[in-house]
Amino acid sequence: MIKRVGRYTLLLENAPKIAGYAAIVGKKENEGPLGGGFDRSYKDTTLGEDSWEKAESRLQKEAVEIALQKARIQPGDVDIIFAGDLLNQCISSTFGLRSLEIPFLGQYGACSTMAQTLSMSAVYVESGAARIAAAVTSSHFCSAERQFRLPLEYGGQRPPTAQWTATASGSAIIMPQSMVIEKENIETKNSKETSLIEKTPVIEAICIGKIKDMGIKDANNMGAAMAPAAAQTILDFLEDTHTLPTDYDMIVTGDLGYVGTDLLMQIMNQEGVKIENLHNDCGKMLYDSKKQDVHAGGSGCGCSASVLCSKLLNDIKHGKLNNILFIATGALMSPTSSQQGESIPSIAHLVHIKGI
Amino acid sequence: MIKRVGRYTLLLENAPKIAGYAAIVGKKENEGPLGGGFDRSYKDTTLGEDSWEKAESRLQKEAVEIALQKARIQPGDVDIIFAGDLLNQCISSTFGLRSLEIPFLGQYGACSTMAQTLSMSAVYVESGAARIAAAVTSSHFCSAERQFRLPLEYGGQRPPTAQWTATASGSAIIMPQSMVIEKENIETKNSKETSLIEKTPVIEAICIGKIKDMGIKDANNMGAAMAPAAAQTILDFLEDTHTLPTDYDMIVTGDLGYVGTDLLMQIMNQEGVKIENLHNDCGKMLYDSKKQDVHAGGSGCGCSASVLCSKLLNDIKHGKLNNILFIATGALMSPTSSQQGESIPSIAHLVHIKGI
Repeated sequence: MIKRVGRYTLLLENAPKIAGYAAIVGKKENEGPLGGGFDRSYKDTTLGEDSWEKAESRLQKEAVEIALQKARIQPGDVDIIFAGDLLNQCISSTFGLRSLEIPFLGQYGACSTMAQTLSMSAVYVESGAARIAAAVTSSHFCSAERQFRLPLEYGGQRPPTAQWTATASGSAIIMPQSMVIEKENIETKNSKETSLIEKTPVIEAICIGKIKDMGIKDANNMGAAMAPAAAQTILDFLEDTHTLPTDYDMIVTGDLGYVGTDLLMQIMNQEGVKIENLHNDCGKMLYDSKKQDVHAGGSGCGCSASVLCSKLLNDIKHGKLNNILFIATGALMSPTSSQQGESIPSIAHLVHIKGI
Repeated sequence: MIKRVGRYTLLLENAPKIAGYAAIVGKKENEGPLGGGFDRSYKDTTLGEDSWEKAESRLQKEAVEIALQKARIQPGDVDIIFAGDLLNQCISSTFGLRSLEIPFLGQYGACSTMAQTLSMSAVYVESGAARIAAAVTSSHFCSAERQFRLPLEYGGQRPPTAQWTATASGSAIIMPQSMVIEKENIETKNSKETSLIEKTPVIEAICIGKIKDMGIKDANNMGAAMAPAAAQTILDFLEDTHTLPTDYDMIVTGDLGYVGTDLLMQIMNQEGVKIENLHNDCGKMLYDSKKQDVHAGGSGCGCSASVLCSKLLNDIKHGKLNNILFIATGALMSPTSSQQGESIPSIAHLVHIKGI
């Protein structure tokens, strides 16, 4: 049952589970602080394909395939897949997933897509519209850079507020808690799990954001454009649920980076809601800002997707985190809108994930 | 309650109603066979804005505003809006709708977007995830032409298989049948309704399609690329529901145009399912192919959206149609994917609408 609380929040009373999840990244991402924790990484950004767009499509397809494998199901078991990405007409998703033959609903939420696809999947499973749903998104530094900014060959200089688009994909498989898929022997035998604790991440609630536009026009400062949207969604959720930040282990945004995080803290402090000690940002977690020259941190749909589908869900699985708010943020502009002098509308969607 | 039947179909047992709908079009569309039946039309394709993209955003915003007015509600009454369009990063939707402050989930289904946003709205309302949901999409000949094909100033010649992107937007407001909004006196006074019958369109069922790619690479022949997807979704739905084409008053696709329609008939005949006498296509309905020089018919998200949200829903309201299958089709490619030699993956989603 889906229960509406307050103005914006949906409580999912049966809390569907994330039965499988996977993250695939590029070389730079695997060299960062979360390196080694991903399901797969590629040293060659082309993945052997003849374009970066095709490489990104493959990241997305493989992320879904590994997540399905970890959930011990086949593509034919999935009733619906929600997918999206940053490329024009979402071609990473449509080309990446066409061979899977799963009913497909394309989503566009820019870098908020992981929270959006996860939310949609959870609503579909909770309402019985799907028995099993899949969520996936991706980004690729090279395909994004040439589409949104400059040809890579130009060697353009990046301002300090710019964020680095992650070459990464994350996917999650959602099903009811009551659905039990038998473990195959081979899986148990090959398992490298060392933790004694094995919890299951479940989706307790979601909060879909409104578009916020504070008039920021600098396409090299996405963090600043997105911070007000993140603040709004967090505040709406806390008000709707009558909870406090301290009711959660972690409030993790993605991907505000360093500049956007500072701004989020300022807004939250102005609102009298302290989250500093609980807050982290996927754009800060994915790279080592001192060693990896990413300026204001990571970004791209694949940034929060890959951090969620590796570090964060692993920590929930192993009992290190029990109760988190995951708020993915998106800047809803295009090169055309920026060239026409428009500001950057932004959005943030929240997913409340628990380990049980 | 949502009930899954067969492999792909969802029956919505309480059949949420389309409480308001609106279509706005450009000059050419209003000069076509459906002219005069739209809620608003503009002679100037810029709508007085300084870019076609901004004009398209305004089409979308105004379509929502009129639909809300006809449903006798305010933007603040809407719990969620599903919107999408053809422009890169869906900027018609994000910029058009930002001022409405409604929780927003961007959808990307190319020209299938009206069926997709309508489906999502219906699932949200039926499951209780939203009390009231809104669906909207748009396209604009000038913004699409320069993004997907050639600058208008170039005066490129169009092959006979090419379709004409509609300058149009359609929006629908979905709520439970049980929700009754009081009529204001002013509304009744100004009403120009002459029909004695006034039925309500309700959404009985939906069927979400899989991506089909038959290897067609000609971006000037979208109809051919999309026809197999339309056929697949219609066949899946008929099989899931154990119904025959003759159980419906009309099977209306959008927007295969003339070339795609011929191909759809061929495929359906091969499958032994006769739909000729029941079939029409929004791409054929919107323009007069003999007088209006649109070659293979209309296309664009706004084509099927504006035909549904004027002629089709009006006919249901006035009892001329009682039971239709609306199948919007989308070609999920981009200029980049075509330049890279890729084929055109396509999709079709079906919405079963009844008048009660």
